[in-house]
Amino acid sequence: MTMAHQTAAILVIGNEVLSGRTREANAYYAAGKFFERGCKLSEVAIIPDEREAIISTLNRLREQYDAVITSGGIGPTHDDITMESIAAAFDVELIEHSFIVQAMTDHFGAEGLNEGRRRMTRVPQGSKLIRCEKTIAPGARIGNVYILAGVPYIFESQLDSILDQFGDRPYQRIEIEVELPESLFAKALTAIQADFDDVEIGSYPGRCGPDPCGKICLSSQNEDRLNEATQAVNEMLENITAKKV
Amino acid sequence: MTMAHQTAAILVIGNEVLSGRTREANAYYAAGKFFERGCKLSEVAIIPDEREAIISTLNRLREQYDAVITSGGIGPTHDDITMESIAAAFDVELIEHSFIVQAMTDHFGAEGLNEGRRRMTRVPQGSKLIRCEKTIAPGARIGNVYILAGVPYIFESQLDSILDQFGDRPYQRIEIEVELPESLFAKALTAIQADFDDVEIGSYPGRCGPDPCGKICLSSQNEDRLNEATQAVNEMLENITAKKV
Repeated sequence: MTMAHQTAAILVIGNEVLSGRTREANAYYAAGKFFERGCKLSEVAIIPDEREAIISTLNRLREQYDAVITSGGIGPTHDDITMESIAAAFDVELIEHSFIVQAMTDHFGAEGLNEGRRRMTRVPQGSKLIRCEKTIAPGARIGNVYILAGVPYIFESQLDSILDQFGDRPYQRIEIEVELPESLFAKALTAIQADFDDVEIGSYPGRCGPDPCGKICLSSQNEDRLNEATQAVNEMLENITAKKV
Repeated sequence: MTMAHQTAAILVIGNEVLSGRTREANAYYAAGKFFERGCKLSEVAIIPDEREAIISTLNRLREQYDAVITSGGIGPTHDDITMESIAAAFDVELIEHSFIVQAMTDHFGAEGLNEGRRRMTRVPQGSKLIRCEKTIAPGARIGNVYILAGVPYIFESQLDSILDQFGDRPYQRIEIEVELPESLFAKALTAIQADFDDVEIGSYPGRCGPDPCGKICLSSQNEDRLNEATQAVNEMLENITAKKV
């Protein structure tokens, strides 16, 4: 049995996100899934459909983290250059995969396998296919890199099919609403964080009209420690509120 | 007069995004603004509230692009380590800025300037302040790095106040709806893209029920060329549709 990936990065390839046309959705979807499974999402990079940017970013991320998911750029048009760029990053050939050629021929007929669709039969040599029910052209895995589609409903379906390889000890999260300005509890919260290095504590300020109303979020893979830290934060907040009144 | 930045990167610093708790909003806002102004957003990086990640990513981005905007991690709590990490990236001291100390003292009183708020008076030595109406604690600029807040309404206000330094020739975009599968026009679209290297052409497939209905998006800083390329795409689509019927 292979070990599940403990850390991952997501590489979003798409001019449509960088130009503000499209709000990024796939990394957001994956972030939630990885949290539930206990795989740490360590970095998200959004880059243009440019060969050199794909190669250099992918090579950095696959070195740095257990696994990399890419999203986008695997369709039939000229701006779909993810497969060829990843082949170059791994220094392997881009090959027509016989299984995809067959699946496309079965679906579209031999005369329907035009140049655009032919592009979609190509994967880096040595890849395994990532199939899902939503599309005929599959994603691919090479080394620790999983190459998925950019269209969200396909991305989600492909990601779901490989999720069991990511994480093996779910994170849990507790959120505490706070009606105090952060600066009043910042010092005490620092002390609690120092006591709980296996619990991640974040403070997120907000406003309800003129008054502060933020949240303190605690998350951990250890439920007992999460509950202890939550109790410590609640007691700290009660003390400060009591002093204030 | 200083030249406007032609390329930029956004560095989002925040565990809350990587854990799937919060959907990223600031890079999306900035992407739209940069497009309107004609500054190319070349990369978005989302990383955790971790000192080494901030230092190494910031140093890479500020070397690679004209300017970098950071978002998040400038509040009063323990997880707000952006200012000190950026000072380290520039190898300068983190100093209490007299203007911010004065502004905070005026607002909260001398006894209200507690340890948490004191943290928020610190900026990398040599920074210029980025003030906005939404908050007392300002952002800061050092070199080609603009350090902004993570809370969206503050980020947006701070970004708006510096936007005139980004881009000087707006992009325009035209979208064409397409009811054909991408593979039918991929080859012809490649030829059009080759004729228009100053127009960016993207194809984004979608579905309306069982039928394909995607969009071809064209954008450029040159309006005449944008219109010529749009006409070429429309003629190409008409030809293919006519042949099909």
